Amino acid sequence: MGSEFGKTLKISIFGQSHGAGIGVLMDGLPAGEEIDTNALQAFLDRRRPGKDPLSTARKETDVPRFLSGVLPAGEGKLLTCGAPLLAVLDNADQRSGDYDALRDTPRPGHADYTAWVKWKGYADMRGGGHFSGRLTAPLCAAGGIAKQILSRRGIAVGAHLASVGDAEDAPFPLYPAAELFQAVAEKPFPVLDDDAGERMRSLIAQARQDQDSVGGVVECAAVGVPAGLGEPMFEGVESRIAAVVFGIPAVKGVEFGAGFAASRLRGSENNDPFVWEQGAVRTTRNRAGGILGGITTGMPVVFRAAFKPTPSIARAQETVRLSYEEGAELRIPGRHDPCVAHRAVPVVEAAAAAVLLEMLLEGNHGTF
Amino acid sequence: MGSEFGKTLKISIFGQSHGAGIGVLMDGLPAGEEIDTNALQAFLDRRRPGKDPLSTARKETDVPRFLSGVLPAGEGKLLTCGAPLLAVLDNADQRSGDYDALRDTPRPGHADYTAWVKWKGYADMRGGGHFSGRLTAPLCAAGGIAKQILSRRGIAVGAHLASVGDAEDAPFPLYPAAELFQAVAEKPFPVLDDDAGERMRSLIAQARQDQDSVGGVVECAAVGVPAGLGEPMFEGVESRIAAVVFGIPAVKGVEFGAGFAASRLRGSENNDPFVWEQGAVRTTRNRAGGILGGITTGMPVVFRAAFKPTPSIARAQETVRLSYEEGAELRIPGRHDPCVAHRAVPVVEAAAAAVLLEMLLEGNHGTF
Amino acid sequence: MGSEFGKTLKISIFGQSHGAGIGVLMDGLPAGEEIDTNALQAFLDRRRPGKDPLSTARKETDVPRFLSGVLPAGEGKLLTCGAPLLAVLDNADQRSGDYDALRDTPRPGHADYTAWVKWKGYADMRGGGHFSGRLTAPLCAAGGIAKQILSRRGIAVGAHLASVGDAEDAPFPLYPAAELFQAVAEKPFPVLDDDAGERMRSLIAQARQDQDSVGGVVECAAVGVPAGLGEPMFEGVESRIAAVVFGIPAVKGVEFGAGFAASRLRGSENNDPFVWEQGAVRTTRNRAGGILGGITTGMPVVFRAAFKPTPSIARAQETVRLSYEEGAELRIPGRHDPCVAHRAVPVVEAAAAAVLLEMLLEGNHGTF
Amino acid sequence: MGSEFGKTLKISIFGQSHGAGIGVLMDGLPAGEEIDTNALQAFLDRRRPGKDPLSTARKETDVPRFLSGVLPAGEGKLLTCGAPLLAVLDNADQRSGDYDALRDTPRPGHADYTAWVKWKGYADMRGGGHFSGRLTAPLCAAGGIAKQILSRRGIAVGAHLASVGDAEDAPFPLYPAAELFQAVAEKPFPVLDDDAGERMRSLIAQARQDQDSVGGVVECAAVGVPAGLGEPMFEGVESRIAAVVFGIPAVKGVEFGAGFAASRLRGSENNDPFVWEQGAVRTTRNRAGGILGGITTGMPVVFRAAFKPTPSIARAQETVRLSYEEGAELRIPGRHDPCVAHRAVPVVEAAAAAVLLEMLLEGNHGTF
Repeated sequence: MGSEFGKTLKISIFGQSHGAGIGVLMDGLPAGEEIDTNALQAFLDRRRPGKDPLSTARKETDVPRFLSGVLPAGEGKLLTCGAPLLAVLDNADQRSGDYDALRDTPRPGHADYTAWVKWKGYADMRGGGHFSGRLTAPLCAAGGIAKQILSRRGIAVGAHLASVGDAEDAPFPLYPAAELFQAVAEKPFPVLDDDAGERMRSLIAQARQDQDSVGGVVECAAVGVPAGLGEPMFEGVESRIAAVVFGIPAVKGVEFGAGFAASRLRGSENNDPFVWEQGAVRTTRNRAGGILGGITTGMPVVFRAAFKPTPSIARAQETVRLSYEEGAELRIPGRHDPCVAHRAVPVVEAAAAAVLLEMLLEGNHGTF
Repeated sequence: MGSEFGKTLKISIFGQSHGAGIGVLMDGLPAGEEIDTNALQAFLDRRRPGKDPLSTARKETDVPRFLSGVLPAGEGKLLTCGAPLLAVLDNADQRSGDYDALRDTPRPGHADYTAWVKWKGYADMRGGGHFSGRLTAPLCAAGGIAKQILSRRGIAVGAHLASVGDAEDAPFPLYPAAELFQAVAEKPFPVLDDDAGERMRSLIAQARQDQDSVGGVVECAAVGVPAGLGEPMFEGVESRIAAVVFGIPAVKGVEFGAGFAASRLRGSENNDPFVWEQGAVRTTRNRAGGILGGITTGMPVVFRAAFKPTPSIARAQETVRLSYEEGAELRIPGRHDPCVAHRAVPVVEAAAAAVLLEMLLEGNHGTF
Repeated sequence: MGSEFGKTLKISIFGQSHGAGIGVLMDGLPAGEEIDTNALQAFLDRRRPGKDPLSTARKETDVPRFLSGVLPAGEGKLLTCGAPLLAVLDNADQRSGDYDALRDTPRPGHADYTAWVKWKGYADMRGGGHFSGRLTAPLCAAGGIAKQILSRRGIAVGAHLASVGDAEDAPFPLYPAAELFQAVAEKPFPVLDDDAGERMRSLIAQARQDQDSVGGVVECAAVGVPAGLGEPMFEGVESRIAAVVFGIPAVKGVEFGAGFAASRLRGSENNDPFVWEQGAVRTTRNRAGGILGGITTGMPVVFRAAFKPTPSIARAQETVRLSYEEGAELRIPGRHDPCVAHRAVPVVEAAAAAVLLEMLLEGNHGTF
Repeated sequence: MGSEFGKTLKISIFGQSHGAGIGVLMDGLPAGEEIDTNALQAFLDRRRPGKDPLSTARKETDVPRFLSGVLPAGEGKLLTCGAPLLAVLDNADQRSGDYDALRDTPRPGHADYTAWVKWKGYADMRGGGHFSGRLTAPLCAAGGIAKQILSRRGIAVGAHLASVGDAEDAPFPLYPAAELFQAVAEKPFPVLDDDAGERMRSLIAQARQDQDSVGGVVECAAVGVPAGLGEPMFEGVESRIAAVVFGIPAVKGVEFGAGFAASRLRGSENNDPFVWEQGAVRTTRNRAGGILGGITTGMPVVFRAAFKPTPSIARAQETVRLSYEEGAELRIPGRHDPCVAHRAVPVVEAAAAAVLLEMLLEGNHGTF
């Protein structure tokens, strides 16, 4: 019951890493929205594995097939028809053999043990099953569609790799432009400062060489979001985005605006002064991350998500045998991402775009 | 529509800071649960204002009146009857006069502006209205009830003030005991290390003296939570807790286990090795914060929430006049909390307890 | 968890028949909506007991107290402020003594037995507890507010008593006018045809004389509902209204348009021919009850709800003793409604108005 | 957003009549549940078209392909693994040509007009699109799986065609047995009394001959449902079942137990006397349809759904041209079901089974 979010627009992810297919169901998309499948594919390709020496060697084309919810509109374009949209991504590369030996010895840092407890051994945990990072592909399909719809309303969502280990990228400027987002998206390594990117790549390469892995932080911004979106308390923009972003595998922290750093600031430093600019109320800085009281201010919505280091590492790890009360040493075969954070950049964008679209579709029922 | 959370157990907060009353509706509480109103009052008193030179001078007794959902059981005890429980806290101290001048000049860092946009000027923003920190009192009423119910199932929830500014408390031990939680709860200042507490109090006092405020971090833990609780993806324990904790005013970041620090670790450091201990699978450390794949491991659930500095500060701030396109200087009269984080400690506990109870009541439908 | 409905606008009912108070929480009302408390009281008075020899003698003033969500606007008017609205109705007349003897002998046709099973004896079933018809008063408070908001958008909701036993009122005309609704609402007995009303009153009086009770049917219509409201399948207008109307105590059937009679018609009789009238597409009859595929046609939304006879009757009934495996004869003391259907007329209106407002606030996201 | 129901178990239907495929996503199924695909196919075949001279000639094999949520268990058996289950039914027979001419002239009694309004002409209404009766096939897939799971807990769900036009079947006995359900299911025409069935078949054949159609009523029962299931008010069993059953195309009325007839009874006739039988509390009749106060009594849950006559009829009908303000005469080509009620029998069973499973999985949180 946990693989869906949204109310007016419901987005449901399905599939297991080594099952027949994975995908997403979107119920509540408005009709008449164009989907440019080429642009969508380009977005999906940003997270696709197998392109890069720093990623897993798993080969997947990840071309969505649409079973419902759209009508063809020529030249690689589709039009939504109002009915629920189902997109399927076939699983091509299923090397289940790699995992069979691991069933009784849960991998530290993975959901193997918790899934075993929850589903009493019935879980399909081949390749991580439904918990696999592979399930972020359909989230990207949904988010990629959301991005196209938002874009036509002047809302752009972008992200960059803010840090890997202790190597940090430059932060987004106060008003990141859609062009900046696009420029980052087109880079082979999604950073603002390519020198910082090189340092990050070195850290990742070193981790791989050490049969280890490393974590990172993704920073995401949405510009053009109108003021007044969100609800007080538990349906605020922060609550809604955080709930979805924590659903991305490996995320262990989410912060908005100054975030944890705000706890080390004074009020006079953290409060964003209001000013009139070009007929609009703005703030001279954006420590609030574009959100006050759960509701958008009209400034860019900015947040960061912390990704833990990939739990799959080649070096030996201590674990238990579940069938006997004894310990075990585990070596995880196969080739794994020594870092997931850089591939997670479009995934975080997708999550943010999906939530923002969903909240926009719910309407802003401040008044009727 | 944002002031409710939960599915099987729905918890809805209502009220404005300067309205007739505030309170909470709990729909879905099991019947036959005892509520010790004295223990509940003691819990509510932990966040009550007016007790302490470091807090606002607003005087509120905050004694909940139960209009429904309970039957008296003698000696200050109530028994839930299965019907929705409504608890009202009357607003005694409503100095609305303080705020009338502020209507046209939104306070930086507050929801004044966003509420004005959303509700087109119809919002009741006296004292922060529905966005006031005062609304955390009914959340504590709900959470205090949840804590009592959880306690009878061997689950204890506790928290401490992890930092104020750059003054840091000691972290929780690997297995915090219910007694430790109780000891912290009984302290006038909720820290593990009283020397650290003194440093924090100095920072707060200094901020007040400077007509300023300061932020902090609250760390919360729940022990005794069974393994296997939670769902994959968007209904994981992290998603569920984060959505509610971000609903607490002033929270700008939430992290589980190692959290953002995990992004600076290697996999070999961050993965928690599994071991058998006393017939149970445990981990030798708890970087995961008791959650893998959104599902509990049986280790303590540990998270931290970052609170921004109180936006209400006495010193002059730059803002705008909403009715004319011009700037304004704002001084916020009245006495305000120079830090909310220490009073937020029971609020974070309440949020965690409420979510965990809710998730336990939903059942763990791994198998049927 | 069952006493709430709605998504964008959530309406939650609380209270027990003999508790301190009952009421309703409305989370998601738009701000700036006027509530005329006099008009609201007049609506509530339509279902109030103790006015009429055909009703229970219980005396309740049923004047809602608003604890939150509104600001005074002069002359008995309130303005919603966007925050959740809480209205409390105090329970004045609580003759619990009448019910104490009944605890061990569940009343046939009441929820005594099912509540006892569900809540293991902890339920507060004095006077029917949370299942009491008294809980329809807060539903009327919510619906009365919804009716005022809808009325300002040209939507009128009205109802009449369509039948009692086999005595039938005239049906609504194809286009019932708001004035007709008002005229019925002002009658002491809410029918279109007063002669039919007299026959119904005779049947009710006769049932009372026989220490028995009688059922009836309420027909409700909403005019001015725009075409295109509702969703396919399980969120259609029929599904949404039925779910709430079945929440009214004693309702055992709900039908839209021709309803069950449609099952005895031919397609050529039941299909409503489309015609252009005054620049709008209409149908020449309304067998569909204004709904096709779950979505409104723009014709009046028409439905009927069947109320069973009041289960509380004075004559002896066969039941069981729960504490011993033995039978018992039960006589229910006190004075009860020999029919609930006539008092249920405003309740059905309230349910319909609340659902329609809720669906309108959700928006009609056919396109974006 | 309307094609999903359920909370703990979410069931989402997708697809259009003439799209690539239709299907169902089930999120929240317990793990370790066996699905007998042969039994499931037999159930699906009960609603499949093209078997019978009284049904549409559309040919569909309707064999579900499972993309996720299951693992093979040998001999046509699958085992659920806890992850969301996706079942796809490919659309084989898509004669879209038949419908192209109809775009501008909405078919009376169909959702053509309402979908056109809602989705501003972007809807895919070929063959009824997402509103097609064809979408009941995936509902049957979900319900067929639910029936298998319920059956292992001693709960049997069955239905029969209670009437066609004015030809009525015998009612279910007080305690219908699973064997009776099975016997009806195996009949070519799903009635209890085959003579009544013959009269119904004659009425259907006559309607076809008259280029017309006819409606009917399906009666459904669930036996073995434990007492205490359901919630008060808006989450009662009646509300939950009705919301889903009204989602089945052509349903215009739903009633439980005596239903509308209860409105013509006296309380002494309609109240079901409680008795002890074999150590259990039962009632001597079941006018309540197994539900009091929204909560199950332990008696069979019994309800009826009224189906309108098929709106697609061969004879000429009056409609409008949408593109010009003028009328039109419409003849619907192709071969259509002259009655849908007999094919709807398994669909109603499926809806009931799905809701009951969902409610059982939510737990009965009367006490904790």
